[in-house]
Amino acid sequence: MKKLLLQLDSDKLASSFDTITAYDAGVDHVLMFGGVGVEDVRNIVYGAMFTRGGEMLKNSAVFIGGSSVPVGEAMLKAAQDAFFGPVRVSVMADPNGSNTTAAAAVLKIIRATPVAGKKAVIYAGTGPVGVRAAALLVKEGCQVLLTSRKLDRAQEACKAIYDRFQLEVTPMEVRAEASVIQALEGAHVALACGAAGIELVKKELWAGSPTLEVVADVNAVPPTGIGGIKPSDDGKERESKIAFGALGIGGLKMKIHRASVARLFEQNDLVLDIEEIYAIGKGL
Amino acid sequence: MKKLLLQLDSDKLASSFDTITAYDAGVDHVLMFGGVGVEDVRNIVYGAMFTRGGEMLKNSAVFIGGSSVPVGEAMLKAAQDAFFGPVRVSVMADPNGSNTTAAAAVLKIIRATPVAGKKAVIYAGTGPVGVRAAALLVKEGCQVLLTSRKLDRAQEACKAIYDRFQLEVTPMEVRAEASVIQALEGAHVALACGAAGIELVKKELWAGSPTLEVVADVNAVPPTGIGGIKPSDDGKERESKIAFGALGIGGLKMKIHRASVARLFEQNDLVLDIEEIYAIGKGL
Amino acid sequence: MKKLLLQLDSDKLASSFDTITAYDAGVDHVLMFGGVGVEDVRNIVYGAMFTRGGEMLKNSAVFIGGSSVPVGEAMLKAAQDAFFGPVRVSVMADPNGSNTTAAAAVLKIIRATPVAGKKAVIYAGTGPVGVRAAALLVKEGCQVLLTSRKLDRAQEACKAIYDRFQLEVTPMEVRAEASVIQALEGAHVALACGAAGIELVKKELWAGSPTLEVVADVNAVPPTGIGGIKPSDDGKERESKIAFGALGIGGLKMKIHRASVARLFEQNDLVLDIEEIYAIGKGL
Repeated sequence: MKKLLLQLDSDKLASSFDTITAYDAGVDHVLMFGGVGVEDVRNIVYGAMFTRGGEMLKNSAVFIGGSSVPVGEAMLKAAQDAFFGPVRVSVMADPNGSNTTAAAAVLKIIRATPVAGKKAVIYAGTGPVGVRAAALLVKEGCQVLLTSRKLDRAQEACKAIYDRFQLEVTPMEVRAEASVIQALEGAHVALACGAAGIELVKKELWAGSPTLEVVADVNAVPPTGIGGIKPSDDGKERESKIAFGALGIGGLKMKIHRASVARLFEQNDLVLDIEEIYAIGKGL
Repeated sequence: MKKLLLQLDSDKLASSFDTITAYDAGVDHVLMFGGVGVEDVRNIVYGAMFTRGGEMLKNSAVFIGGSSVPVGEAMLKAAQDAFFGPVRVSVMADPNGSNTTAAAAVLKIIRATPVAGKKAVIYAGTGPVGVRAAALLVKEGCQVLLTSRKLDRAQEACKAIYDRFQLEVTPMEVRAEASVIQALEGAHVALACGAAGIELVKKELWAGSPTLEVVADVNAVPPTGIGGIKPSDDGKERESKIAFGALGIGGLKMKIHRASVARLFEQNDLVLDIEEIYAIGKGL
Repeated sequence: MKKLLLQLDSDKLASSFDTITAYDAGVDHVLMFGGVGVEDVRNIVYGAMFTRGGEMLKNSAVFIGGSSVPVGEAMLKAAQDAFFGPVRVSVMADPNGSNTTAAAAVLKIIRATPVAGKKAVIYAGTGPVGVRAAALLVKEGCQVLLTSRKLDRAQEACKAIYDRFQLEVTPMEVRAEASVIQALEGAHVALACGAAGIELVKKELWAGSPTLEVVADVNAVPPTGIGGIKPSDDGKERESKIAFGALGIGGLKMKIHRASVARLFEQNDLVLDIEEIYAIGKGL
């Protein structure tokens, strides 16, 4: 029986990135659905639930992508709401690559240095990757500071993390150079999750930090958010710190993405969201 | 040469149910087309007609789905209008599952008891499944009463059956309990085709019928249209009658659906509408 | 690793003709994208560029179709603009079949007779096929006259050919019978590229030409643009000339189309536009 992945994407056109990655993960056929609304999810999922019975259900699975992370989250909920007890299929959510990217970034960091009991700063961390990375780092025993140019946005993000994960992250407004430095005080890890092409932390601000061990950045478009590192850095030593750029993180992200999709077809009742995707990455 | 099924669906998103079923029927690739208008059919069908010649034409076929049965019927006509003599491909119509469901329901009934010379009542029979089941039962020699809450709707349905199949079905208005009972008088078969979750015939009204042999229902959402039976009933004895619920019928429906899709690729000139799909079901 | 073709189509529904042909060319999976705007191309192409690295990039490729040739040309440019140096995938453009049809028509002609130093007339040649065929014939050493019912349209087409190919074609207004004859004077080749079902050159006007060797026509709907020939003509002698109709040309067009798609997967840096597609056709 063929392994079929139903790709649900809220963008007008389904992501070719996600489709190709699914084929490389061993899926036999991807059913590409673009322009999917939350209200369309139930019927698509029903099609997977009611065509293959019992043990065979595990050969159908659902992948939720799309560039909007909130819509993707609502679609994940709608998919789970469609299930009837054991009549269900496995589902993975990775809207805008947020889960696989956050998992990869944190795995790079914790493999470079143990983080339990240490301090991490996530610059411009209010987006989906920053929020997820913050939660994962706290779970690893790290104390996390999440910054934004606006305090209320940082506070909202920390509240969202608490609501979703019941984990504490400290919000901080960071705009001027003084606050960039202040955030970095005593930090062992700095992760930049800001918009593409914007430098958040100049090299001279982090290069001399006595505590900093790891710098990482998830944006691929130069200049990097962490000044002085390169997108291709994958554990490169820079200023006596270990640096990870977006492409270095991206290689691991792809592996996690493929392994997670492959995992979907092992049983019919998986829900792969950030925690499960991170666990899969850890097991690689 | 790969077996390709062109799935034409008038809904915004092509039905995942139909796509998955096609793969399970042995199709190599399904070309999913959602949001198809009747005016789009010709070009899609041309693509199948003009790419593979002669003997190879049978490796391409067309499946017409979508939740709107009238649009599906118009699409089936448009597909046939596109053919040039022997330059054609096989086509199957099953909008909203109407053909495979009606075929399965009637097959369950006639396998439970011979119906020639007997009487069947189809409650709430004006929809696509009711109309098709009525025609099939008349073809099997049964006298059929088709009911609706409004007489003119029942009359229209019977006229549509006559226009399409040249078969006589008797319309009847059924609203109050008295008319439910009256319809059932002397009936050997009762089939409910009403909207999901509405009880059409209370258990106490049919349980004591001296003539009734089979009760069947195509709706899966409780309460069933025929009171006192269950969606999972598949020939279960209830009140000394043989009962079929939607899931019991659904198992056979799936087999008919898959067998019909597989049949498309045996030759290039099939048109599988209700009669042919029923014949395929009979042959299983 | 599976060979994946990303089919980009500006029409609402991706062309089933192009999808089926791609499968027959050996592609493992076609990712069908209908309703693609020029602004969507970059992201789709990124998905192919950033999922498979290095040597593996050649297993993903892009096909640009759609009924609008100008939009297809803009999409080809957008795809090339998306590439980063060696990080690229092969791409083929054949909007409305224009490249494969023009290549096939000219190949049929030059295989019937050498054209260097001779004269060809392309009747109603302002469309995509006419323009491309004109350029190919000039490259083969032929002097080409391109006609239109309006002089300025013929002039525009010749200017477009010069801008794109730096090749000289002579424009001519042809409406009345006298000008049809005048255009044909001293011509060895006549190719009709007009709208379907319109006769451009009556049989009695070309049958007696002392110089004419080949007549060809790319429209499949009778009457043919060149009177007295048939769509199925594939080198048939008519009035002592060699005749090619749309279906005769169409057989070669299909072979060129399939060979071009197959070629895409041999390396990751091909751009198959009219020149390259013609060269592939020549090599068959």
